[in-house]
Amino acid sequence: MRSPVQQYLESIVDQCNSGDGEVAAYIPELAAADPDQFALALATVDGHVYTVGNAETAYSIQSISKPFTYALALSDQGFEAVGRKVDVEPSGEAFNEISLASDTGRPKNPMINAGAITASSLVSGDSGIHRFTRVREWFGRFAGRALELDESVYTSEITTAHRNRAIAHMLREFDILEGDPEETLDQYIRQCAISVTTQDLSLMAATLANGGIQPTSGERVLEATYVERVLSVMATCGMYDSAGDWISSVGMPAKSGVSGGIIAVLPGQAGFAVFSPRLDPHGNSARGVQLCERMSGDMDMHMMHVGRMSNTAVRARYPLSELALRRARPEADQAVLDAHAEKTMIYELHGDLLFAGAEHVVRAVVNDAPDLAIIDVRKVDDVADVARVTLLGLRTMLREAGGEAAVVDPEGVMPDPDAGTQKASPYFDDLDSAVRWCEDELLRQHGREPAEERTLVDEHPLLRDLTPQARKVIDHHIEEVHYQAEDIVLEAGGKFAGVHLITSGTAIASVEGPGSSRVRLVTINPGTSFGELALGTEGVQETRVVAGSDLTVLRLSAEAIETITAEHPDVGLEMWQAMTRDAYRVADRALRSGITFG
Amino acid sequence: MRSPVQQYLESIVDQCNSGDGEVAAYIPELAAADPDQFALALATVDGHVYTVGNAETAYSIQSISKPFTYALALSDQGFEAVGRKVDVEPSGEAFNEISLASDTGRPKNPMINAGAITASSLVSGDSGIHRFTRVREWFGRFAGRALELDESVYTSEITTAHRNRAIAHMLREFDILEGDPEETLDQYIRQCAISVTTQDLSLMAATLANGGIQPTSGERVLEATYVERVLSVMATCGMYDSAGDWISSVGMPAKSGVSGGIIAVLPGQAGFAVFSPRLDPHGNSARGVQLCERMSGDMDMHMMHVGRMSNTAVRARYPLSELALRRARPEADQAVLDAHAEKTMIYELHGDLLFAGAEHVVRAVVNDAPDLAIIDVRKVDDVADVARVTLLGLRTMLREAGGEAAVVDPEGVMPDPDAGTQKASPYFDDLDSAVRWCEDELLRQHGREPAEERTLVDEHPLLRDLTPQARKVIDHHIEEVHYQAEDIVLEAGGKFAGVHLITSGTAIASVEGPGSSRVRLVTINPGTSFGELALGTEGVQETRVVAGSDLTVLRLSAEAIETITAEHPDVGLEMWQAMTRDAYRVADRALRSGITFG
Repeated sequence: MRSPVQQYLESIVDQCNSGDGEVAAYIPELAAADPDQFALALATVDGHVYTVGNAETAYSIQSISKPFTYALALSDQGFEAVGRKVDVEPSGEAFNEISLASDTGRPKNPMINAGAITASSLVSGDSGIHRFTRVREWFGRFAGRALELDESVYTSEITTAHRNRAIAHMLREFDILEGDPEETLDQYIRQCAISVTTQDLSLMAATLANGGIQPTSGERVLEATYVERVLSVMATCGMYDSAGDWISSVGMPAKSGVSGGIIAVLPGQAGFAVFSPRLDPHGNSARGVQLCERMSGDMDMHMMHVGRMSNTAVRARYPLSELALRRARPEADQAVLDAHAEKTMIYELHGDLLFAGAEHVVRAVVNDAPDLAIIDVRKVDDVADVARVTLLGLRTMLREAGGEAAVVDPEGVMPDPDAGTQKASPYFDDLDSAVRWCEDELLRQHGREPAEERTLVDEHPLLRDLTPQARKVIDHHIEEVHYQAEDIVLEAGGKFAGVHLITSGTAIASVEGPGSSRVRLVTINPGTSFGELALGTEGVQETRVVAGSDLTVLRLSAEAIETITAEHPDVGLEMWQAMTRDAYRVADRALRSGITFG
Repeated sequence: MRSPVQQYLESIVDQCNSGDGEVAAYIPELAAADPDQFALALATVDGHVYTVGNAETAYSIQSISKPFTYALALSDQGFEAVGRKVDVEPSGEAFNEISLASDTGRPKNPMINAGAITASSLVSGDSGIHRFTRVREWFGRFAGRALELDESVYTSEITTAHRNRAIAHMLREFDILEGDPEETLDQYIRQCAISVTTQDLSLMAATLANGGIQPTSGERVLEATYVERVLSVMATCGMYDSAGDWISSVGMPAKSGVSGGIIAVLPGQAGFAVFSPRLDPHGNSARGVQLCERMSGDMDMHMMHVGRMSNTAVRARYPLSELALRRARPEADQAVLDAHAEKTMIYELHGDLLFAGAEHVVRAVVNDAPDLAIIDVRKVDDVADVARVTLLGLRTMLREAGGEAAVVDPEGVMPDPDAGTQKASPYFDDLDSAVRWCEDELLRQHGREPAEERTLVDEHPLLRDLTPQARKVIDHHIEEVHYQAEDIVLEAGGKFAGVHLITSGTAIASVEGPGSSRVRLVTINPGTSFGELALGTEGVQETRVVAGSDLTVLRLSAEAIETITAEHPDVGLEMWQAMTRDAYRVADRALRSGITFG
């Protein structure tokens, strides 16, 4: 099948076919470029690359190197040391302006040549060549492959770099550059002559879009805090003296180069690269700008585009009383729970929790003022620090009111800072376990002893309505069986082995999940039963049931059921009627649990 | 309960207590301000306002008026007419620089005084006073209440506005201003003297954060495309000559005013306002800047902060074969479906669908290459245009391969542009109906006539395993009943009325939802049954069952079941055993439908 994303990219390339502009001519290597070459590449943050045109053609990176060298300088020296040498103010000036602050000599930003040469000098290394080697390897980590120098571009540029040489010496005069300015100039010219393809550039951009993690290698190349800084500077200063126009019309952090490339970053989503050598009067690729404007307009890519993220954090919110209960509690306990389950609230969260999402959750809980809250973060992808702190505040608030928050978080997206201490919150791998914990809490609060202490099987629907005669016959066939924690009681695929009523301990039913994982379906408590579902699946047991602790069951085996039915048809009829009612009770509850009101 | 969000805001106000800076002194009304006044307000995009300090204290809006007047000029005149008079380039200069382009005289941006005065002149109106009245009412629509002029501030400023008077006349000289510059100056000084509270400013900012819709009134004040422009200009030019520092350290679109206010916008999430009259050397509130830096750092509010949005679009993805089927198909049809259900895929989407999310969906579908796809967008909040177009491309792609996409979209978040035509996609209000449509398609493709055409009850689990003698007794008690579409067959709350086997037509089971809505649970097809679940709920029918079309059922009534059990115990036993097996079959399938592997 042909992807509509691919089709879309091809269609806009057809439509944005500006032939305006002139190829850069100041060195023969650039002047010789075929002006009609074209490539577009889009790399997603998980490393899928779409291309149109010849995205494997190589050319010199030129000024697109600037944000990446600035990133390396930040990574090597930190914000403060770099900030002493180069500012982050938009200059509103052309790329080749000298633009030093009249008092300090500090270049206005690292996207103009003066600032970029300064950033190159801030890379750690013993010599210009050592620093260049580190820059080349650094770029390769963003691209996901080793990159090489284009010697002929370097040789050509170094001989005609009069303006950059003037800038370097001026920077030395102000002590912005230290050491030999010719060495730094040589390093900078080499850096601009690193050979890249459009596909490389799209992955370099996607690394920034992905918060500093290279999409294909999975390597963290740049710390997130430096990614923010680099993107900020690209947004305000990346497109030379048309930065304001760019930010208004395209609205993505971007950087262009004189060889005809442009990269643009859609944070969290994708990196783009376009290559077309004809330049507009600002020195940006004319067709590249046209394509970026088109994509931004079509694709809501403007960074100031307002989505509705804030309303999506709470996926579902309901009291325990509305949770479809899964055959887990004896009826008498259930009555207590039914009477008090309104004040236990379940909050299912999803998506990325940013400030507004966490605020929404907090507001919901403040409004509900529950005694107990279950925060289910299984569908949450990422939790911003602010959201984590805010949700911890929620726990404190609940505790001050005498309550508690239980958390369902098998993947640890929201770790408890108090884990392992007295202050730890109850954390669970599945909602069922969290619900069981809350129910036990409620039962304790309302004077019911824990279920393990009582004899509950008499209350079981299979037994409670039997006539005394029938009960006597059945009791005669029931046997008590003991298991130790972790024992497999029933294996998936086995034959129907009878009805098992738990008198003490718990059992856990699970099925195979993806791979060789196991998905826990339900914890089965004293007073409830298991095994009988196999009657509905051609007599085949479909889940594995394991003892969750030391476990005692009363078993009415399949053979016993057969014997009773054959020898005491009247008791058999009663027994099957009881089983029918129990089965439809289970079915009804399970069907209800599938209801969504959302 | 005390909200942790409120607690957090109070704690950072305590910690960010800079007493640096001086109150603006150029007019007595500002010089007289108590330098230690303080207020913070945070307004969410759904209109909840948190405040610390005295957020009801009024002061003159001053330069915070600039983005809102620029918004009105854009709204009145459009991008092009406004763009001819004022540019959007960062100036990197102080607020009171004259900063006109040397060639055209055009101010660099609408956040410096020259650009702001120009923007004021572009508001539609017959006179300066008329234009001012429109500006005042416009600001009130952002604040959610009528605003007034502070006459004493206006009177004081107009007499000492020498620099702004010079700017206005210079703008007139270049024909940037048309008409009387004194009239525009008067209008501009009045605009700066509009009286606002910190709470007002937070709601004005939240209106921008909310894409132009005022959070409390719900009124669309500004078109989304102009919101993007205004936020872009605030981001690059809002904080005078420290715009670059601001965008690097705080990273939110913002605007400050000389009376000590700052607004900041977190797109999609919240608007902030801070008020503290002591100003730093750039003319921005010193404590305000300190607080904004702190909040941005704590709260991941930097606009270049990279989340992981792109991975959250596909909530679940599974073949029809893994959908827990809900007692809907006769077994023979089920066998056909089981054999072919791998090539029908269900994609449950959620969150806001931006480009990357839609691309993810497309990639999943291209990879799966299903014959039929169900796209379930019930949990999707917002669909960006690009996502809509991309998902439509998906449909085209599936059709070219001989397939189709069915859409579950009860709220119309992704309307079909071909609705009502031959090219329309099948749209459904619930997943169950979409699944039924796909199943019918599959059955047709594989040579099974639609179920309505055949006699299916013999295949029903309740009847198929009976001995001939038992079947004969039961047949004697079965009665055929007809209903018309919309007839209520069983009412919720009624007594168990027996087992109903559908021979033709469909029935729909539903329960009450929130309010007086009804939630459809399942469509019941020929060859399947309903009514027997009441046996599991103390003999009470808990769903309403309505004929979905002309409907014929074979009914084995509650009385008939009782009679058979009493008069033919052997047949009764067989019947109850069959019911038990059927019930556990239903229970098993329903329990499985609650499994999530996510």
